[in-house]
Amino acid sequence: MTTSADEQAAGGLSRRGLFGLVGAAGLAVGVRGGVLGTLAATRATAGSAPTHDFFGAHQAGITTPVQDHLHFASFDMARSSTRDDLIELLQDWSYAASRMTQGLDASASGAVGGPPEAPPDDTGEALGLPASSLTITFGLGPGIFDERFGLRSRLPAGLERLPAFLGDDLDPKKSDGDLCIQACADDPQVAVHAIRNLTRIAFGRAVLRWSQLGFGRTSRTSARQQTPRNLFGFKDGTANILADDEAGLAAHVWTDDGGSFLVARRIAMRIETWDRVRLSEQERIIGRSKGEGAPLSGGDEFAEASFAGDAIPAEAHVRLAHAAQNDGIRILRRGYNYVDGNDELGQLSAGLFFLSYQRDPAQFIALQRALSRDAMNEYIRHTGSGIWMIPPGAEEGSFVGAGLFA
Amino acid sequence: MTTSADEQAAGGLSRRGLFGLVGAAGLAVGVRGGVLGTLAATRATAGSAPTHDFFGAHQAGITTPVQDHLHFASFDMARSSTRDDLIELLQDWSYAASRMTQGLDASASGAVGGPPEAPPDDTGEALGLPASSLTITFGLGPGIFDERFGLRSRLPAGLERLPAFLGDDLDPKKSDGDLCIQACADDPQVAVHAIRNLTRIAFGRAVLRWSQLGFGRTSRTSARQQTPRNLFGFKDGTANILADDEAGLAAHVWTDDGGSFLVARRIAMRIETWDRVRLSEQERIIGRSKGEGAPLSGGDEFAEASFAGDAIPAEAHVRLAHAAQNDGIRILRRGYNYVDGNDELGQLSAGLFFLSYQRDPAQFIALQRALSRDAMNEYIRHTGSGIWMIPPGAEEGSFVGAGLFA
Repeated sequence: MTTSADEQAAGGLSRRGLFGLVGAAGLAVGVRGGVLGTLAATRATAGSAPTHDFFGAHQAGITTPVQDHLHFASFDMARSSTRDDLIELLQDWSYAASRMTQGLDASASGAVGGPPEAPPDDTGEALGLPASSLTITFGLGPGIFDERFGLRSRLPAGLERLPAFLGDDLDPKKSDGDLCIQACADDPQVAVHAIRNLTRIAFGRAVLRWSQLGFGRTSRTSARQQTPRNLFGFKDGTANILADDEAGLAAHVWTDDGGSFLVARRIAMRIETWDRVRLSEQERIIGRSKGEGAPLSGGDEFAEASFAGDAIPAEAHVRLAHAAQNDGIRILRRGYNYVDGNDELGQLSAGLFFLSYQRDPAQFIALQRALSRDAMNEYIRHTGSGIWMIPPGAEEGSFVGAGLFA
Repeated sequence: MTTSADEQAAGGLSRRGLFGLVGAAGLAVGVRGGVLGTLAATRATAGSAPTHDFFGAHQAGITTPVQDHLHFASFDMARSSTRDDLIELLQDWSYAASRMTQGLDASASGAVGGPPEAPPDDTGEALGLPASSLTITFGLGPGIFDERFGLRSRLPAGLERLPAFLGDDLDPKKSDGDLCIQACADDPQVAVHAIRNLTRIAFGRAVLRWSQLGFGRTSRTSARQQTPRNLFGFKDGTANILADDEAGLAAHVWTDDGGSFLVARRIAMRIETWDRVRLSEQERIIGRSKGEGAPLSGGDEFAEASFAGDAIPAEAHVRLAHAAQNDGIRILRRGYNYVDGNDELGQLSAGLFFLSYQRDPAQFIALQRALSRDAMNEYIRHTGSGIWMIPPGAEEGSFVGAGLFA
């Protein structure tokens, strides 16, 4: 898998050459626009387009303030791929991600800085755009730990396909995958550019299995962020774990080595049906008011819900999902709304692309089982599902997943 | 079509009641959040979220500075719909659009201001969001002028299905439609909210035929806007007609009554194939440099292309499409990039949702025919198509299309 023919087919991108350049020296070369220099000043004002470090103790994109746009992609390793291919892929991905998150092209020669007689290393649609808060988060699915890559002994406890849940209507073409990438940015073109170039870099080693665009995040990880609304029109993520809640993150999100587990669920909403439910019933289904997002037991949005009386009905979503009703179990949610055109009946194909991070998949499983009685289930269907282990962040000059191969 | 049963089915939304409220008095009632008042301050700072008037000589969304996000929708009238239904639909749509473009709910009672025992008038996912530069532009397709609505004599010259073009691979499910709505906003949730609520208002009278989300606009209508890039990585729209070019707009865009014609083409890009084309060849296909976007005949991005020599090849896109090569024909482009997941081969389903406004459909037809030799055709397929007449803007208190029924 490392012949020059392959490298040519991948668009002239020399995989071997990529990783060696990583680090501060590599990053100093070629802001998007490459050697032409005419686009050297690609950054917008810092306030509107922050840049997040790729390297660090944890991967970015988990507690990072949730950006407005998502492009999520799931990949399967090629049948012929070896352990070395997997290592090189993770190296090349980390290198390109470390550049793109800084507002740089996917490689040093980039979109226009290479030889004119070769295909460009970077596809170019992000030329001139700032980093736009881009984060790129890599995950490894259960398939990575089968016999193919010599990682069987490294299978993390709990990393297996999720069990079937009541109401599952999963499409295999929108589920699972050996690897995943979550790209979040304030500009969808930047998120799409990242997934496209990482897909291209994977050529011959891994192939895109499915992908999902999302917008209008449905959670917040910072007290400074307003709570956004899902497509049922309700605030979503009011009681999320916040980035500055170190004790909460340690207890619920980070594994001992600084990684996590990611669960993705594509939740289709029957929005036309929902839209015909009277307001009071919508609020009883959720357990919160629609305008303010306050628990029906009283107070404002951030008041603690009281489950003592029956102000919040027994089958209200907020009651069944609440930590107080689930032995204190919490997860970090990071979902997005989606609209994928419409069906043949003229109904929008819309819903929630649910993403959650937790230190143990059992947390998600327990909460999802608790939701089997959720009054909301009449209005949703889970159509996609996946689980991945999230390695800790890479040290500068290393790559995500390196610890598995030590 | 005006029974109370229908009104109930439409979610309690009283169509009859809607239009009477239009105008300044109606607009003063209930900023998003309705009578609760807790969300009265829904506007962000003016700089980040301008508001565009719905009423005016021309419809907004044509020369308006191009927003970052698009939700486009095409509708067919229900078989049972009458002329009165069409009139009322256009009235109700105009009323709701006049509100939503100001950052208000779709009706005065809105998402949370109605009686709790009724479904809300507004679906609520834009509660608390600013207007976000939302524009809503309505179009009428050829089907509106058949025998159903008594408008046969009002058929505008040139409003007919586009002829077949070389390379067409049109999907009827992504083409045509009796009515269209172009919703553009700086926040995709605001554009989606507009289309969703207008679809809901149409219940029983018109049904969604197809819809398309887009991002990262591919043209500019103001000299202050940077020229954005399409998914081939090239700047697109450098030579567009600008909003302050009144002579150009009069000559090429506005019909005598202040309307226009809209052409939509869903252009799928073979991006994986394109990405393997060497840089110099990509530039010869487009006729411009990739980094700067300068014509290959020399100068910077905004230099006039020279077609005297062969610096710009005979089959380069910019040569074939240029007004100087087409008897001076120009169109106002307003397209968006799209990514709709991926195909079974793991290739992103991506491309350009091309939108153009012109005073005569013959302009588009001539230019599209000129492109039959376009070197770019090897990398694209037209998979959707539609044409609509765009009525002039409505006067305050009236509705888009009123002139057709006078």
